[in-house]
Amino acid sequence: MRLILAAALLFATAASAAPKAPDEVLKASPKSDWHRLDPADLLVMQLKTGRVVIALVPGFAPRTVGNIKKLAHSGYFSKGAAIIRSQDNYVVQWARDPEPKSTGGWIEFERGPSTTFHALKDPDTYAPQAGFDGDFPAASDGKTEWLVHCYGVVGAGRDLKPDTGDGAELYAVTGQAPRHLDRNITVVGRVVQGMDLLSSLPRGAGAMGFYDKPAQHMPILFTGIASEMPAKDQPRLEALTTASRSFAAYVEARRNRAGPFFIRPAGRIDVCNIPLPVRPLSP
Amino acid sequence: MRLILAAALLFATAASAAPKAPDEVLKASPKSDWHRLDPADLLVMQLKTGRVVIALVPGFAPRTVGNIKKLAHSGYFSKGAAIIRSQDNYVVQWARDPEPKSTGGWIEFERGPSTTFHALKDPDTYAPQAGFDGDFPAASDGKTEWLVHCYGVVGAGRDLKPDTGDGAELYAVTGQAPRHLDRNITVVGRVVQGMDLLSSLPRGAGAMGFYDKPAQHMPILFTGIASEMPAKDQPRLEALTTASRSFAAYVEARRNRAGPFFIRPAGRIDVCNIPLPVRPLSP
Repeated sequence: MRLILAAALLFATAASAAPKAPDEVLKASPKSDWHRLDPADLLVMQLKTGRVVIALVPGFAPRTVGNIKKLAHSGYFSKGAAIIRSQDNYVVQWARDPEPKSTGGWIEFERGPSTTFHALKDPDTYAPQAGFDGDFPAASDGKTEWLVHCYGVVGAGRDLKPDTGDGAELYAVTGQAPRHLDRNITVVGRVVQGMDLLSSLPRGAGAMGFYDKPAQHMPILFTGIASEMPAKDQPRLEALTTASRSFAAYVEARRNRAGPFFIRPAGRIDVCNIPLPVRPLSP
Repeated sequence: MRLILAAALLFATAASAAPKAPDEVLKASPKSDWHRLDPADLLVMQLKTGRVVIALVPGFAPRTVGNIKKLAHSGYFSKGAAIIRSQDNYVVQWARDPEPKSTGGWIEFERGPSTTFHALKDPDTYAPQAGFDGDFPAASDGKTEWLVHCYGVVGAGRDLKPDTGDGAELYAVTGQAPRHLDRNITVVGRVVQGMDLLSSLPRGAGAMGFYDKPAQHMPILFTGIASEMPAKDQPRLEALTTASRSFAAYVEARRNRAGPFFIRPAGRIDVCNIPLPVRPLSP
């Protein structure tokens, strides 16, 4: 079988002084460059095919995330919730089915500048600066900061009126980053486990990828906040800290792939081409 | 159900003088702005779930595409070919299974500048200029031009040595554009029909998304060049001409989404966020 990416270089490791492949950087990273994903901010969604875990972002979307937690706590998402839409190269979307009428929502599309935002040096097509803020891809124009719609990012669906997204209907990006949604909708988190369960769902044949047959809906068996689950069932995950030296080395390793496969390193990286490294919590 | 994209605006159409949504631009485009996809350059791949059609790009990769046509003509891909890999947010890959040893290949990663390249005005993270050349996303540094790894783009897998890709093993991009592959591998075409059949395949559990159980391989029942098929079986497709006025309007409509949903149009567009409009050939 022929190889088409740098991960293959794990099997052809160069001397330790040479530039490392991204996976090698992760292997070499100290435990102190990782942090546990707080169970109070993890939304767990059980499908018949497995478990999807979403890291919520209360620092950016306090009201919408607060409402999602309230809804999850009340069992809202566990009564007839289902994935109702899968549009190729775009999003999957889920809600209670049928969905109750929205009683309002919030506009949490951007916030003021933050000291926790770290810009990449790479130019971005859409924003003056792109980079990371905590566990999330973000962008800034110096005056405001907003979260970026990369693969796996989760947002709150809304109607035409901007203040109608309340978190009762959510979507996750499954294709090329739809950056035109940035600052038009509230980002509430990102999938940190089980993304493949969402991305590999059959595409819906209806308009915009909605399933045209209710039988195609993928039921969501349970949705809850990790910290409210029995300890043995809670996801135990840690993420590489984006402000750490190891993360900077990981970005550089993705910017300029090392090893014999790549004859022309890209030299640049798009913020959405830097997946957050997440792994089971190490002892 | 709540809406999260401009396509929804089809149902809330503004006066014709107002900016149009992308789908409205396509509807309004004259037939003369479309062209038939030449059956001599269409690779048809039959899966049990449906048909995948790939537009090949002989102008960029004459030797590799020539070999793919030769292999298809000889029935090479129709004897035990299968999709053997599906890596989330990256690629699916297929080959004969087991794959015969490669007898060599070609380096067709870039070519000289071309008068058929049209740059977008938008900045690109990876290249001095990005845009389109014929039916394909492309980039240029003024001295050389190369094809860009957007969603649905198909390339020729290779070994570590650059001249080992011969088209006997192919991959299609199913995730965020892996632009680091640009100029490191030969792009041979793009999927123009049936992409969802590839992107929704279960992800492989092995290293790099290879299926770890042969039973998971998705057999390819038939592969052939459209022009060599019986006329009634040939795909009849047309694409919007990227050099046309309608395509320019379509790009602008994607750059600045019209209508009441979007409160802040992006103003910029990434070359990989401009899917090629393809439809059944109109009479």
